[in-house]
Amino acid sequence: MTAAPQKSAAQNSASEFSIPEDAIPMGFRFAATRVGIKPSGRPDMACALADQPATAVAMFTSNRVVAAPVVVGREHLQTTSGSVRVVIVNAGNANCATGAEGIAACTSVCKAAAEQFSCALQEVFPSSTGIIGVPLPAEKLISAMPEIASRLGSTAAHLQQFAEAILTTDTRAKIAFARLMVNGAPVRLFGVAKGAGMIYPQLMPHATMLVYLFTDARIPTADLPSLLHGAVEDTFNCISIDGDTSTNDTVLLLASGVSGVALTPANASDMQAFAAALQQVCASLARQIIDDGEGVGHVVELRIEEAASRADALRVARSIAHSPLVKTAWAGCDPNWGRILAAIGYSSVAIEPSRISIRIGGHLVCLNGGRAPGMDANQVHAAMLERNFQVRVTLGMGSASCNFLTSDLTAEYVRVNAEYST
Amino acid sequence: MTAAPQKSAAQNSASEFSIPEDAIPMGFRFAATRVGIKPSGRPDMACALADQPATAVAMFTSNRVVAAPVVVGREHLQTTSGSVRVVIVNAGNANCATGAEGIAACTSVCKAAAEQFSCALQEVFPSSTGIIGVPLPAEKLISAMPEIASRLGSTAAHLQQFAEAILTTDTRAKIAFARLMVNGAPVRLFGVAKGAGMIYPQLMPHATMLVYLFTDARIPTADLPSLLHGAVEDTFNCISIDGDTSTNDTVLLLASGVSGVALTPANASDMQAFAAALQQVCASLARQIIDDGEGVGHVVELRIEEAASRADALRVARSIAHSPLVKTAWAGCDPNWGRILAAIGYSSVAIEPSRISIRIGGHLVCLNGGRAPGMDANQVHAAMLERNFQVRVTLGMGSASCNFLTSDLTAEYVRVNAEYST
Repeated sequence: MTAAPQKSAAQNSASEFSIPEDAIPMGFRFAATRVGIKPSGRPDMACALADQPATAVAMFTSNRVVAAPVVVGREHLQTTSGSVRVVIVNAGNANCATGAEGIAACTSVCKAAAEQFSCALQEVFPSSTGIIGVPLPAEKLISAMPEIASRLGSTAAHLQQFAEAILTTDTRAKIAFARLMVNGAPVRLFGVAKGAGMIYPQLMPHATMLVYLFTDARIPTADLPSLLHGAVEDTFNCISIDGDTSTNDTVLLLASGVSGVALTPANASDMQAFAAALQQVCASLARQIIDDGEGVGHVVELRIEEAASRADALRVARSIAHSPLVKTAWAGCDPNWGRILAAIGYSSVAIEPSRISIRIGGHLVCLNGGRAPGMDANQVHAAMLERNFQVRVTLGMGSASCNFLTSDLTAEYVRVNAEYST
Repeated sequence: MTAAPQKSAAQNSASEFSIPEDAIPMGFRFAATRVGIKPSGRPDMACALADQPATAVAMFTSNRVVAAPVVVGREHLQTTSGSVRVVIVNAGNANCATGAEGIAACTSVCKAAAEQFSCALQEVFPSSTGIIGVPLPAEKLISAMPEIASRLGSTAAHLQQFAEAILTTDTRAKIAFARLMVNGAPVRLFGVAKGAGMIYPQLMPHATMLVYLFTDARIPTADLPSLLHGAVEDTFNCISIDGDTSTNDTVLLLASGVSGVALTPANASDMQAFAAALQQVCASLARQIIDDGEGVGHVVELRIEEAASRADALRVARSIAHSPLVKTAWAGCDPNWGRILAAIGYSSVAIEPSRISIRIGGHLVCLNGGRAPGMDANQVHAAMLERNFQVRVTLGMGSASCNFLTSDLTAEYVRVNAEYST
């Protein structure tokens, strides 16, 4: 194996450390500015520029109501067969449920970017996140184009600004990166994400979570989809804050090739090492999204084991993750495993209650479908005082399993979302 | 038509009026007592006795994890082909996830009732509601059997006590009744329910919502299922507080026959009138359950129209009703229709966003998938200050429709459920 992860900070968030300069993929520049879309007046427009066309692949939401930038971005990638020069993101307005005017607004922003950066219209990839159903003030983004172009740069500060401008109700930037050595040469992989609410991304191969993954490896467009799908399936598609699948979810992977290091299926071990690094970066971003979810008090890792199939394991995980009664019990550090059992029971998966065992924070609470002998509720309660704990369910129906990351449901979540737009 | 509703108070809850003595079905007696299962020390054991065996039908939860009384009650009804003498209910303990001991505890309570009331074991119908996974203290119920028998009576006060003893986190008793004249003779129909949490009953023909329906009409057992299914489908199966389908949901209909009025399919118009009265009583109880749901601030009637099928309409309704983002917006009286549109989009129903319109409290907020021209957010907000309002969705895909009753999601719901058992 010629590739080995040299450095990885995938478990840390940006707020905890500064971005090392040598973690930044070559061939990209970044900028952000404020154009007045966020009511808070914080930076709300971000731009990533590939100096030369980057090979690109994206995954979008499976919601049947999709935002204008999802429609436009998908079309652009199809037209160029996966080539991107410019990514333009605005936060504070989702440009969704805005009809033909929304599409026109999105396209006019792309046009302005294409002119500014002397590329084809279809080489511009647009993203929006924020409130649904409010016309996008395209003119604000268009008139800021020269300014954002003048701010572009490839330092850690520039990337940090990009990562902050795309946030909405997030409280901090979400960043993860990895560096690989391939045949003695470094390859960089850098990911930026935003999340906070409406988080249950169910991404389709053709995903208001926005994720941008940048690498300076050279990867043929044809090889990007399987790389991205592989990484997304166990990460972004296995997280949920509220079960609300957004209209705008997007994950974009761009490869500039500027490192000079080529990754192809022919070199299987390098490709595998890159895929592992990509998965690690995505897993870190996915965890950061849950950890910074609206009002989240606890991050809960669901581990479903001994399911008849992975699909069954995921169905059980989702049923637990979306049960308000389970989530509120977690908020109260309440070892009420009966609610978990009930959620398993209505998951539509064929289960046998007498075979089910449940562990919370390592403590066996339910054995063979009943209260575990000697279960000490106070001990379990103590384990649940931790911000992170695991709920492990053994179904006894087979050998399939899944990990699924979710959160509790707190009064703060309600407050944040009951006061959103009015 | 020989039957006409003479009197109906189905829209009122018990707390708002006293039960008229002539609303009480003949042939039943009721009692309640405290046995120390509810930590509050309030009455927690209830009994309904049919002086002669009543014809009976029940519907139970579709959850694959079912409580012991559901298992035992179903078996008893099968054995007797639908005949019940005694209903024994305890509140504060669901006797669920309690294994073989739970079944044995339930059976021992039924045995004590059978001895007390000199009937067959299988003529006893048991119900439990409360916390899951805690052994039922059967001995408390058994030793209270002589006392509860001594308290039986058929006055309004007795019925009121029955209705109160079955409550858990409910704040008030849920009662509805109707009186019909059939060929000049009165037939009485009386319903009692409890709800509050884990409320998304999906009842199966063979439902912690408990509903007891008593009538003094004489109805052959064979005719009861279609009557009850018809009434449940549009009422209890079209409500949800939190999407959590309970392990204990039960609806029981008992017909004593003591009025002397026989209802048979041969007399179609009488049967139809009775079915209508039954539906009205169930609809009232269903609304009372939502209105008294845990932390409920708003009762929202979803009206889904122009769906391709009723199944599609229901799927859209459930997706909206279970979206935490939609429910929190309602809690904040926030006319954020974009969240409703997003929930429609991920409902898995084939929709066309450009055909969708949404009305909140009578105000058009979304037209053809976008913001309705002239929509005044302040006006809509004002309409949402009402405790009850309607959300009407027009899909433009067909002619099927449904009504579905649900609630907002408040910080109080979180408080109630985060402090439940510890």
